[in-house]
Amino acid sequence: MSERYTIGLDYGTDSVRSLIVNTATGEEVASAVFEYPRWKKGLYCDPAKNRFRQHPLDYLEGLEYTIVEALKQAPAGVAEKVAGISVDTTGSTPVAVDERGTPLSLTDGFRENPNAMFVLWKDHTAVQEAAEINALAKKWDTDFTKFEGGVYSSEWFWAKILHVLRDDAGVLRGAYSWVEHCDWIPALLTGNTHPKTLKRSRCAAGHKAMWHEAFGGLPPEEFLVALDPMLSGLRDRLFRETYTCDVAAGTLTPEWARKLGLPANVVVGVGAFDAHLGALGAEIQPYHLSKVMGTSTCDMLVAPLEEVHDRLVSGICGQVDGSIVPGMMGLEAGQSAFGDIYAWFRRLLEWPLQTLLQETNLVEENTRKKLADEISGKIIARLSEEAANIPIGESGLVALDWLNGRRTPDANQNLKGAITGLTLGSDAPRIFRALVEATAFGSKAINDRFTEEGIRIDGVIALGGVAKKSPFVMQVVADVLNMPIKVARSEQACALGSAMAAAVASGIYPNTHEAQARMGGGIESEYLPIPENAEKYQTLYETYKKLGRFIEES
Amino acid sequence: MSERYTIGLDYGTDSVRSLIVNTATGEEVASAVFEYPRWKKGLYCDPAKNRFRQHPLDYLEGLEYTIVEALKQAPAGVAEKVAGISVDTTGSTPVAVDERGTPLSLTDGFRENPNAMFVLWKDHTAVQEAAEINALAKKWDTDFTKFEGGVYSSEWFWAKILHVLRDDAGVLRGAYSWVEHCDWIPALLTGNTHPKTLKRSRCAAGHKAMWHEAFGGLPPEEFLVALDPMLSGLRDRLFRETYTCDVAAGTLTPEWARKLGLPANVVVGVGAFDAHLGALGAEIQPYHLSKVMGTSTCDMLVAPLEEVHDRLVSGICGQVDGSIVPGMMGLEAGQSAFGDIYAWFRRLLEWPLQTLLQETNLVEENTRKKLADEISGKIIARLSEEAANIPIGESGLVALDWLNGRRTPDANQNLKGAITGLTLGSDAPRIFRALVEATAFGSKAINDRFTEEGIRIDGVIALGGVAKKSPFVMQVVADVLNMPIKVARSEQACALGSAMAAAVASGIYPNTHEAQARMGGGIESEYLPIPENAEKYQTLYETYKKLGRFIEES
Repeated sequence: MSERYTIGLDYGTDSVRSLIVNTATGEEVASAVFEYPRWKKGLYCDPAKNRFRQHPLDYLEGLEYTIVEALKQAPAGVAEKVAGISVDTTGSTPVAVDERGTPLSLTDGFRENPNAMFVLWKDHTAVQEAAEINALAKKWDTDFTKFEGGVYSSEWFWAKILHVLRDDAGVLRGAYSWVEHCDWIPALLTGNTHPKTLKRSRCAAGHKAMWHEAFGGLPPEEFLVALDPMLSGLRDRLFRETYTCDVAAGTLTPEWARKLGLPANVVVGVGAFDAHLGALGAEIQPYHLSKVMGTSTCDMLVAPLEEVHDRLVSGICGQVDGSIVPGMMGLEAGQSAFGDIYAWFRRLLEWPLQTLLQETNLVEENTRKKLADEISGKIIARLSEEAANIPIGESGLVALDWLNGRRTPDANQNLKGAITGLTLGSDAPRIFRALVEATAFGSKAINDRFTEEGIRIDGVIALGGVAKKSPFVMQVVADVLNMPIKVARSEQACALGSAMAAAVASGIYPNTHEAQARMGGGIESEYLPIPENAEKYQTLYETYKKLGRFIEES
Repeated sequence: MSERYTIGLDYGTDSVRSLIVNTATGEEVASAVFEYPRWKKGLYCDPAKNRFRQHPLDYLEGLEYTIVEALKQAPAGVAEKVAGISVDTTGSTPVAVDERGTPLSLTDGFRENPNAMFVLWKDHTAVQEAAEINALAKKWDTDFTKFEGGVYSSEWFWAKILHVLRDDAGVLRGAYSWVEHCDWIPALLTGNTHPKTLKRSRCAAGHKAMWHEAFGGLPPEEFLVALDPMLSGLRDRLFRETYTCDVAAGTLTPEWARKLGLPANVVVGVGAFDAHLGALGAEIQPYHLSKVMGTSTCDMLVAPLEEVHDRLVSGICGQVDGSIVPGMMGLEAGQSAFGDIYAWFRRLLEWPLQTLLQETNLVEENTRKKLADEISGKIIARLSEEAANIPIGESGLVALDWLNGRRTPDANQNLKGAITGLTLGSDAPRIFRALVEATAFGSKAINDRFTEEGIRIDGVIALGGVAKKSPFVMQVVADVLNMPIKVARSEQACALGSAMAAAVASGIYPNTHEAQARMGGGIESEYLPIPENAEKYQTLYETYKKLGRFIEES
């Protein structure tokens, strides 16, 4: 086999990254990153209302830039040897589209309308709609949420659609259908953008849109109309079939091939969620929890279909045949906020730097800004350093990590965080330690749920920014879970996973297992639980659960 | 009557202040302040362990400095017209003394021993001992805590004595008896320092030492020995009689008269606690809660003896005939932390300024310190300003003010604070607002207890630093209590109250009521509750109480 390359394109929350990989060796030969310019400016968002929207132009500009730029940096001749491209994105991040599959915000009359843009995964404006879906699902003969853990979240497809349509009569009139971000990019690249024919991702459909073989696809028209008559007819303008990431969506259109500087026969794979392809790029294996640890966490587990097929795991984010690894059952869970909690605490401590420091006459404006930036950049590292020296349980502080609601177990975006055990001696490192422990306890609650529901966990494989950069946090999590945590080597696990998927979709490898074996980066380190710490955390974890029950019942 | 003056000497937590007052007009003619130098350096204390001790030399140096200095500043001829001095101090702040009544830390072998120093009111090292006292009291035929609210606190006399004696065999051997700070200063000035004869304050004895007429004085020997055999014999070396603040302890010794530059016949009044004389100096009247609002609060109410004599008010800090106003029943309650909670939050936000800012190379050391000081000094004012603009209930945050335990209702120093309702949008002003509301809810819990126990509250009179300096806090408290709050005019209510007491003890006025009428400063302002705010706080207060029950049961 002659030398072949694939491109993984990874759309994260803040930026998109391309990665060109040698399919025979896994060597990552070039990469480029593009930060979304409109998003960076805070356009179309209102954090106080948990409204987060992204403009499709941010995605389009990033698509072109990152692939062209990476090809420029790659050794000569690589472009001609590119066999496939696969795409992963955040999700559920749907957008209203017209009949041609064009996001409304790319059409006249909607260009600056946030409701016509992609509704980002972490947008929580649809809390009320999620509650209605849950209420209706519990009354219906069939509970259409049952393969999604039995609780529908405001972060997901139908809740977001319903919220936007109710909120915006213009979008209601203009929206022919809806498309997930991970489905729109492959549709665009292959020229098959019609909402009824473009190839839809199994993972988005199964985990977020209540799609399941057993239901004959999406929930029936009667259910959707019962939810709200304004949904009438939409089901027919969506989809029946879904596809796993090893399937080709098509080949690049001549126009895109020219624009990107690639051969016209390059295969474009069916898209998937970033976490799912990240797990692939980070050594996922059956019965190991692949934990993407960043601002939030996404926890994934795959198991042979025949072993879990009939077992419904309650309170997680879903179980979908082929959603993570084609041919396996993919189970997903996660925490709504993880690193975001540390960032919140950093922002809290920064308050005097951002307000009073900026008004002082003691130093000039330029220096004031530099001071705030320099200090801000060091806060979390210093807190980690000092928190690591505080004995477990010494502070008496116990926190609850629901500052962005709870994703699993048992999704509930209305829940909030808490800190107990405060004294006049509770200083910043002590509170930080309690917050880190709380995020670890949140992880343990997920592990416990899997185990209680009969899905064993043999090990944990971590990826994402926190896994790579925070040894203090990782040791706390290992101690709390009382389980070793392996950290995958790849710095760009999502993009690498996409490149692996592209290698299968373009026929270089017969399946993802084979692609993983040849292109995977292996494990770079392992955190081992310290038995005496694990034991001490048992007591604190009981206090955490008790606090959680109180908050939940309040 | 020729022009006569009295001196009020007010020993606070951080400093001592003298105030020379014209007894006919209430004019404050001179004043001086002395900060305790050893205390300021943090000597003999360990805040992490809640150990707070003060060296008697801090008190002695302050005694001489403040009186001499104030006399220097007073118009010529005032010194000769001084008729009396009265002293108020913090409490319970006892010290171990030898047979001559000298604090052990002023004698060889104990000069640097914190256990031989005054155990400051806020020292919480005796939590275990307080628990033992409570347990024994509940088993005994007579509950000796019943006039102290039925719960003995670690902040009080016997718990502290027991803790120190157990902790320090040297002090156990050297301690002949124990003396409260408010009793030691008058004893010293009058030369009557023998522990068995020096005049003991009714308020210290009755509120903190389980002294009561009905018990024949202090709890009986059998009770104390049952508590710990090492207390054997101590009762006889303490006291039987106690005196109200209108009684003279004696006259200045010639030596002290010389040292202070005062006539030899100056009367020294029996001492009292700062809050009690502060209430006197701040317009206390029957059935009004006099609220000293500072780092903590002390809430006092006086009522005619015949109206409350037999009614035991459970869960407060005690009810003592004559403790606040001679001839009236004095009832006391309070919050262990009030302004201290705001100061805690300021320190938390200052963490980057005290650590990372001090290490930067962007500005020189001198400027770094100035920056930290400048910003620190502005934090609470800015937080108050921004918090005032946040609508009640908008943030969803509810906090619990027990960061230094709970003094009343139902003393329990083991309780801790909490914050619930945290989200990623919970910023510093929102959290500050929740903390302010929590301190106000703590105040309401005290009002509720008085009312539930049949003691009506007709109004609130506030004094202390928070009352004078924090209109935002005061408005929140008025709204939460749903009651107007008058703020007393005197800037030095405690010292003024002492000067009033001295005017009675020295025979210028027949009783404190008369002294108040002639020397009092009146009311300077009033906060009126805003009905719609009061209503909104009802709901939040219910959440606060629910949170409190959870924390208490945890």
